[in-house]
Order: sequence, then C-alpha cells, then structure tokens
Amino acid sequence: MRTVEEITTTIRTGLGEIPCDLKLKNVRLVNVFSREIYPTDIYVKGKRIVSIEPGIELQAEETIDCHGQFACPGLIDAHMHFETTMLSPEALSNIIVPNGTLTICADLMEIANVAGEAGLKAMVGNMENLPMRLLLEVPSRVPTAPGLETTGAILGPKEVREIMGWPEAISLGELDPSKILFVKSEYIQKIAETLAKRKIVNGHAIGRMGQELNVYASSGIFDDHETVRVEEMIARLRVGMKVFIREGSTERNLDALVKGALRNHCNLDNICFCTDDKHPNEIAEEGHINYNVRRSQELGMEAVDALRIATVNAAKHFRLEDEFGSVTPGRLADILIVPSLEEMKPSKVFFEGRLVAEEGKMVKKTEVPSYPEWIKDTVHLKNPITAASFRVASRKKSGETTVRVIDMIDRQIINKLLIHTLPVKDGFIERDVENDVLKLAVVERYGKTGGVGVGFVRGFRLASGALAFSTSHDHHNIVSIGVDDTSMAAAVNELARIHGGCSVAKDGKVIASMPLVLGGLMSDKDADVVMKEIEEMNRKAASLGCPMQAPFMALSFISLPTVPELGLTDMGLIDVLNHKLIPVEIED
Amino acid sequence: MRTVEEITTTIRTGLGEIPCDLKLKNVRLVNVFSREIYPTDIYVKGKRIVSIEPGIELQAEETIDCHGQFACPGLIDAHMHFETTMLSPEALSNIIVPNGTLTICADLMEIANVAGEAGLKAMVGNMENLPMRLLLEVPSRVPTAPGLETTGAILGPKEVREIMGWPEAISLGELDPSKILFVKSEYIQKIAETLAKRKIVNGHAIGRMGQELNVYASSGIFDDHETVRVEEMIARLRVGMKVFIREGSTERNLDALVKGALRNHCNLDNICFCTDDKHPNEIAEEGHINYNVRRSQELGMEAVDALRIATVNAAKHFRLEDEFGSVTPGRLADILIVPSLEEMKPSKVFFEGRLVAEEGKMVKKTEVPSYPEWIKDTVHLKNPITAASFRVASRKKSGETTVRVIDMIDRQIINKLLIHTLPVKDGFIERDVENDVLKLAVVERYGKTGGVGVGFVRGFRLASGALAFSTSHDHHNIVSIGVDDTSMAAAVNELARIHGGCSVAKDGKVIASMPLVLGGLMSDKDADVVMKEIEEMNRKAASLGCPMQAPFMALSFISLPTVPELGLTDMGLIDVLNHKLIPVEIED
Repeated sequence: MRTVEEITTTIRTGLGEIPCDLKLKNVRLVNVFSREIYPTDIYVKGKRIVSIEPGIELQAEETIDCHGQFACPGLIDAHMHFETTMLSPEALSNIIVPNGTLTICADLMEIANVAGEAGLKAMVGNMENLPMRLLLEVPSRVPTAPGLETTGAILGPKEVREIMGWPEAISLGELDPSKILFVKSEYIQKIAETLAKRKIVNGHAIGRMGQELNVYASSGIFDDHETVRVEEMIARLRVGMKVFIREGSTERNLDALVKGALRNHCNLDNICFCTDDKHPNEIAEEGHINYNVRRSQELGMEAVDALRIATVNAAKHFRLEDEFGSVTPGRLADILIVPSLEEMKPSKVFFEGRLVAEEGKMVKKTEVPSYPEWIKDTVHLKNPITAASFRVASRKKSGETTVRVIDMIDRQIINKLLIHTLPVKDGFIERDVENDVLKLAVVERYGKTGGVGVGFVRGFRLASGALAFSTSHDHHNIVSIGVDDTSMAAAVNELARIHGGCSVAKDGKVIASMPLVLGGLMSDKDADVVMKEIEEMNRKAASLGCPMQAPFMALSFISLPTVPELGLTDMGLIDVLNHKLIPVEIED
Repeated sequence: MRTVEEITTTIRTGLGEIPCDLKLKNVRLVNVFSREIYPTDIYVKGKRIVSIEPGIELQAEETIDCHGQFACPGLIDAHMHFETTMLSPEALSNIIVPNGTLTICADLMEIANVAGEAGLKAMVGNMENLPMRLLLEVPSRVPTAPGLETTGAILGPKEVREIMGWPEAISLGELDPSKILFVKSEYIQKIAETLAKRKIVNGHAIGRMGQELNVYASSGIFDDHETVRVEEMIARLRVGMKVFIREGSTERNLDALVKGALRNHCNLDNICFCTDDKHPNEIAEEGHINYNVRRSQELGMEAVDALRIATVNAAKHFRLEDEFGSVTPGRLADILIVPSLEEMKPSKVFFEGRLVAEEGKMVKKTEVPSYPEWIKDTVHLKNPITAASFRVASRKKSGETTVRVIDMIDRQIINKLLIHTLPVKDGFIERDVENDVLKLAVVERYGKTGGVGVGFVRGFRLASGALAFSTSHDHHNIVSIGVDDTSMAAAVNELARIHGGCSVAKDGKVIASMPLVLGGLMSDKDADVVMKEIEEMNRKAASLGCPMQAPFMALSFISLPTVPELGLTDMGLIDVLNHKLIPVEIED
C-alpha cells in the first residue's frame, strides 16, 4: 500500500520538482488498461511509475533507450503452489523472473500442512529481497482429510481470520467443492471471514457442472483453475466465476480453452492465467506465464488480449489493480521490455523500478537466505523404524489372501482400487513383485503418533530396493514404496537423518538421498542445483528398475486420501468415496 | 456482507433441502458476467439468488411466470449527489426504483458540509427500510475552500479514516485535481487512508489532459465522471482511470462518449454510468440509469454491453461484485423484469428478493421516516438580519464608483468578472436595476460567525423583491439576491424561521416559501409534493420578473468560490484564481 510520502514523491516527480530515477525511452507501450499499443516514454521514480505521457520531457537520473521494443506489465500467475517445485521462493524467482513473471499468487497448502501459520510466515518473511511479489492464497484445507490423517498443523477459521489480515493475504485458497456440497460449517466460516475482509475466495471446481456448480458458486466462490473443457469454462462464467486458464506440467488446459474462448467470443475480462504446478525443468524449457501469452497468440488471440489476461485481469480479480497489473501512472513499476510480443522473451525485466533480469538471466541471482532453524527440523519419527514396521498382518497363517491394492493410472492423479491375491507367510501378507504389487507405507513424521500405514500398490515397477519422500499430499508424512522392508526402513530413516527430502535404498542400504530441509518439502539450494539433484535421484530410481520419468512426483500423489478410489495415510488404507478407514485384507 | 447463516441457507436451498422463496420462471436472462442472453429460470431464497441453471426444478413458495421477458441485474448509478434533488433518499427511491436503479453510489458532500459525520450517519441511518442500496463515496472536500468560507462541519483525514470504516463507505469522493497538483498533504493523507482500507478514490478531472492527468492519476485516483470529449475518455483509460459516462440534467455526456467508445473500440469494461446531478422532473420524464441503457442502444451499442456498463462494471470497480451487479448465484437478488431491452422500462423490480415496483410504480411508496430532530434544526443566524445587513460601504460619499460584479453565464457553472459602474448614495454603493446589476449576499447560517458577504451580480433579471436559498455550494450558507435590502432581509429571515429551504419576498414581505428541513437542503416530503412545491416557487420567482427556468438552482451555484472567476461567501468576494478575498469596490 502506498504511504503518504510515496504518493507525495510520485506527484512531485511528475510535476518536475524532483528528477525521475529512470526513463525508458522509445518504447511501444502495451497498455492493457486501454487495450492499445502505442509509442511513448515511461518515467519511474523509486518503485512507482510517474508518467507514460507521450512527448513530455522530465529529468531522469538514468535513461535507457529501448529502440522501439515493447513495454508490458510484469506477468501474474493467478494460482500456483511452489513447494512442489522443491524450490524456495528465492530459487524459484531465479527461473521465473527472467521469463517476466513478477507476481505469484501462491496457495502454500503444503508448508501450511507441515508448519501452519509459522510456516506461512517463514515463506513470506524475506520478501524485501525477493525480485518478485509473493502473494498468499490462504490455504483452506489444512488438513485436507480431517480425521483420516495426521498433519503438522491445522488452520481452522480462527487461524484463517488471523492470516487473512496479513498484507500478503489476498484470498482464501482453492476450496474443495465437497466442503460446500456437504455444508461443512467450518469452511463456510472461512468464506465469511474472507468476504468480510473484502478479499475473495478461490475455487477448485473439478468437473462440477449444472446445479452443483450453481450451489458451489452461490457460497461466494469466485474463480476456478480446474477448468478443462470449453463447456466448463462457459458454465463457470455464467455463474459469475472467473476462469483461470491453467498451463502446468501435467495439466495443460490452455490450447482447448483459448481456442474455445475465441470461438465462443467469451468475455476475456473474466479470464486469467495460472500454472498451478509447473516444474523447474519445464519452466526452463518453455517459460512460465510468458509461454501462455506466446501460445495464446499462436492460437489466434491478439497480443494485447493475451497480455491483459496475463496481467491486469488478475490484478483486478484480486482487487489490487491500484498496485500493479498495468503500466500506468502510480502503479508499481513492474515492466518487461520485450523485442517481440510473439516470442515474449524479455530483454529487460524491471521489478518495482529495479532492473532484475536481462536477456533471460538474472542481473544478480537471488540468494536463498537463512531460513529459521526450526523450519529445517520438521521431520521427527516418534518410534524407530525397522523392517518390522512395514509388516501387514493377515487373518491367515499361510497360503493366500485377497487384498485391496492401490492401482496407479499413469500420468493421472487417480488411484483405482484393484483386488489382488497375495501370498501369506508366517501370518503376514507378502508382495507379488513379479506382478508389480509392492508395499506402500506412510510414516507419520511430526513426532506426534508414530503411526505407520501400510498397503499395496501397483504401477511403479521397481525390481529391487525402496524409495522414500517426505512430500506426500497433502499431509506430507513420509511415503515409501519398496520391494523389501529393510530397504524401506533404510530409506525412511535416511529422511529423518537429513531432515526431509527423498531417498533411494537398495539391499537395506541408502544409495542416494537429496535433502529438502525447508519443511521437508523444499531445498535451500538454487534452482540449477536442485534440478541436477532431482535428475540424479530419478536416475537412481531408474537403476532399481523403475521406468517412470518422475517417480518421486508419482510417489507424492499415490497415497492421496482425497482422490478416488483408494488412499493411504499414516492411519491406514482409506476408502475415499466413503471417507473412512478400511482394512487392506478383504474378508472372505 | 454474507453471514455464515446466510451462506448456509443459500447452499441448503440450492441442494433442495429448503424450499426457495421465489421462482422467476421463463425469463431471458441478461447474463452480464458471461455476456450472453439465454432462457432460464431464476430461484431466490431470502435476499440471495440461489440458482440460474436452466432446466432444473427446485421447490418454491411463489412462482412468477415471466413469459419470456428479460431478467437484468438492478442498475447502478456509480456517482451522484442527491441533496440537490431536494429529496430525502426515501423520496428519491420512489422515483428511481421504478426505473430500475437499485444501487446509488452517493457523494453526500452537501450534507457533510452542513453536518459532517453526523449528517452522513443520519442519511444512511434508515437503510433497512430503503428499497434500494445507498453506498457512500466519502466526501473529500469538506470544506471545499478552506479559509474562505464557513461550513457547518469539517472532515479532515481523521474523520475520513473513521467514516471509511463504515460498511456503507466504498470510496473517497471526487477529489479535486488542484489538491493533487498543489500537493496538499491533507488530501494525500485521505487517499492513503482509503487505499489502506482496500477502497478506491474517485476523481473529478475536469478538462485535465497530458502530464497533469498523469500526475493526477499517479496519486491513486481511479475514475473520472467529468469526461466530456472522446479524447478525454481515451486519455483517462490510458492512465488507468475508469470513465463514468455522465448523463445528468445539465451535463449530458452520453451521446458523445458512447459514440466515441464504439467508434474507437474502447475497452467497455472500464466504463460505468452515472448521473451526477439529475433533477426529479427529468427522472420522471425520461428515466434514470435506464435512460442511459436505452439511449446507448439507440447509438448502436449492444444491449448486453449497455447493461454491463450499467451494472457489473460499477460493482467490480467498487470491489463489490460478490454482492451485486449480476444475476448469478449467491449475489443479492436485485432483478429487473423487462419486456423490452430497447425501452428498458421494468415491469417488475425486485430489490434483494423483494418485489418493490411494478409497471413504473412503487408497490408501496417509501415513507420518509422521522429523521433526528437536530438535522431539522441546522439554520441559525448569529445576528438579526435587517436591511442594513446588506449595505456595501464605498470609499466615496456620493457619485459613482467602479465595482467587481459576478456575471452569470446562462446554463453554465461559470461566474465571470464584470467591471461595472454603480451609483453611491450616503456612502453606500447602490444597485443598477435597469442594467440588471443586483445585490447578492451570502449569510452565514451555522450560528458561528454571523458573517454576511455582499456583492453584485448580473443575470437574474429580477424587477422587484428578493430570493433566498439555504443551498449554496458547497458551504450551504444562505444565499440571497434582491432588488431591495428589505425584501432580502425578509427572505433570509424566513429561511431561519422554516429551518432552511427557499423563499421569495416582495416589498419587504415574504410571498412564498418552501421548507427543506433536512439540513436546510432536503425536504422531508415525498417526491410528488416536492416537485409541485418547487414549481410553485419558480412561478413566484417568475412573478418578480425572473425569466429563468430554474432560478433557485442558478442561485445555489452563482456564488461558488471554486469556479472562475469570481465567487462570494459569508466572508466576502473571492478572487477564485488567486484563492483570496478581494474588495467589491475597485481602487481608483
């Protein structure tokens, strides 16, 4: 928010009483407010834009001749989670800022499940040094599956009210439709608290249509980033919800929705862009929100419209258009200098008036600061983990028994129920490695209950050893898969030793591990290092026979207790549709 | 704002667990959010819209078959003052609600100058009984001309901060450009207080262009309702300001700006409608915001766009689109049933789910409630007013002298300086009735100083008697014009007797008066009565020889100390451009 001093300085500078800091001379301004592109100069003082008036002359400390390049507002990612990139906000900034993304609206539900309000505070604690703006969509589901999982923290209506008062808090994060359709009063309280602060409520309306969608919207939910089909987009706009067109790593909705929006002459003002989850290597390859802008043009959208969607629309949606989202007087000087709108690769990136990136590289890499010690120490095993921790008792002494197996559907976050027959030995159910039915375990890691949920899974095709990961949606206990219990114990214990991360074990010994010390979710290293480390971990997993491209990501989703049909938590196997614990072994 | 109970009831009704109150069957919905018109049914529970989904069946207490008529959101007047209509909000509602205006964003600067925070409180004090929504643009200039006029109250930054916290307060009202261009810190403080509350700042950018406009916008001002020319509209959109297209009684900007917006393909999302000042008789004749919608279509705009401008655009601008501005689930059920979009005459008007008007008439007239006694007692003369109060002393004993005269420009709020020679008798300057140079006086009426400013004016063409009025912009002392001092005294004293209003005197005797007891500005009677009364007053003024159509309105603006070149306040004659008091008589 602007102080009296800041407003006064901006005015006096515009009046010529004080020199500007910066003149961006000879730009073609992409004015997303008036929907025009025209030549002018831009004057900046401190963090603010002073003037965009063509043909005037103000004094400036520094003048940069842009030789007719385009000047666009900094891009906005209207919804994303960054913990899953394994990067700190600082490391992330080093790869997205050169692509022109200067505002991220982040739902930090992962760190909130680990460390609650304190975790969120730690994430927004170093904002002065960040070359981008980190805004908070306050997580609405901490925990996601109350009563069925142990989390590090809980955010109830009281905590949400408190956090919603922070200046960084802009909305209530992706509220699950089932909370509305089953009339859960705790979540309705969170909505009311948010609206009372004149902030907005983000949706998460996967597949919902018709009257269900009307009911969902009627509760005060204003947007959806889970829109996949054109009919869904139109349905959401009709009930008064904005559509965030998502282009992430696995969910790629842009082509279909941009084409549909153009074909159906949709009101583009109610559309924003987001990535939701986009992995560092893909950002490095194709870009971030600038990819959305580029691709939308390839699909036939005018550049100024693609840029409106990528900038001012999100600023308006979050009621922050007085602060950013357009290159207009008084707004923060988030400005991209771009040689070609088709390519959308900024030659210069200014964040709040400061040059932060040039020609795809940071002017100065953002260093990961020293995070508080406690956030690097969030992995605690209440009881020692041994091979015996992963035993699954049978009602039988020997022979065979029928069990419920989680069946992974490749590249989709859907975990089906598979009925399978497994051998029983000495009263315990064994794996069927030949048919790829391996053990899956979720180990409580907040030092609270010591619970270990054990089940069976098909789809990873490991031939030996075990993997473990302290990112396990959304509770983020340790999830492990293995061909033998001793390797699983080694992999899990390694994560306790390194304060979270991922590990690979073979023959009962750890053969590789990668620390993610920030809440057990994120690295405190830079993006380049993290990308190399995860590649190496993937290679090590492959050496166990796993053919998957991203086995750890698959592992982080495979036990989800909220996605049909089967889940697994530290409490045990979950019947997702009936929202209850069920036994692994099927009664005869 | 929605309560938990309200959200819960809306959801449960949508789920079919509770019956709806109302079903509007068989409408053609003008969906201003998706920019479409299509057939459906609308379900309402309490004040809220439950569902607009076509083809579903919910139980409802009452069903109204709309036989394919259009359903539109209630209209919004984005900027207006209603004190100048002489009507209370209740009386005003009886003429605008049947025209479909259900939200007024009112800058109540007149009552604020009279009675400050308490006056504003009294105006928004009876909202439960009002069949429309009264929102407050918190007046930024109380007083308008500090140091040059006596007002009943002052609203400094402290008071603005306080009032901005009220739920009815949505913005800081029309901030004068000179306050920014002369860097007045008090007003910058008011801006900062407003932005800190996530509310917005309304502009008043008369004629400003180029760098001045950039400086003005850079202070955080987001809109302008004083836009007259197409180039001005484009300039405002370029600097990130919304344009409120104004169609009032005297200022009629709609035709030019709508045509210009269409011709220049302006982004219509950044445009709203307002009336600023529209008189009851004109509202009765041609309508209110529905006139703007109708006329815009005649000029070639699509109905759905004209309605977007008249509804959801203003709701978004004021960051209240979660509450009203579209017929979408969860929003307040402000719904117009309209047989023809071209004519925009609602057959039924629902405000917050309640039928309030039908076929151009209120279902039940809103009664003016009993306002607090103190607000009906705001006119106090500190000293007795007699003919002698209006004497203008000369340096000469007799003969002639040269004076500064306020020269009225017919139908424009511009008061020019005229140099004229007047007779001097017994040391006092006399009128020149033959040449229409009459006396003008402003009498302090808050019982504070007893000041009487006296000058000369040309343009009213009174042949005898005097007029007085307790509405005198923006300080609202008593202004009087007269052919003889005795009649002026009689007219002024009458206003003290009737607690404000307007009066006509002849030969030293009052021949007519009309009380405006609410702050000396507004009547506590209904619109019909007020319209008849003012017509009668205008007739009486005509009987004195005044040929003007609206002499009292002219009188209320003739002494304005903020409009070039000459003004008059209770302190004396004002040199507007140099912002100082000057003598009536010119030195030789």
